[in-house]
Amino acid sequence: MKKSVFYHAGCPVCVSAEQDILKLMNPAQVEVVNLAGAKDRISEAEKAGVKSVPALLTPDGNVLHINFGASMADVKG
Amino acid sequence: MKKSVFYHAGCPVCVSAEQDILKLMNPAQVEVVNLAGAKDRISEAEKAGVKSVPALLTPDGNVLHINFGASMADVKG
Repeated sequence: MKKSVFYHAGCPVCVSAEQDILKLMNPAQVEVVNLAGAKDRISEAEKAGVKSVPALLTPDGNVLHINFGASMADVKG
Repeated sequence: MKKSVFYHAGCPVCVSAEQDILKLMNPAQVEVVNLAGAKDRISEAEKAGVKSVPALLTPDGNVLHINFGASMADVKG
């Protein structure tokens, strides 16, 4: 089964959401990507439709934007 | 185990997010509440910290506000 991808940027809101997501879902089915430490994956996230972080990209290709932590522009800065 | 509660209001965006959530989590662990059809539960949702729908209240009492970006298909439909 294709994994979900949880994109975040290391902010407190992101970390809190990450802990919730990993409790609610099977952690083995979620790849966690910290864009602050993996700037080469920002374009991948943007292509997938990620507008802000934290966000969960589902195996079906839908993006669930969770709360509003930081805009993609902030992550790049 | 305490269930999560997925609050929504019956809009297309909510229904799409609901389908994603029920695929990602164990459906038996999620109570789905349509506030449009259960107005008596709006105050309960507000007390729990729900600011917008769709939102997922976790068993720990955290609220994940899910802003699913409407797809172009949804916008056209």
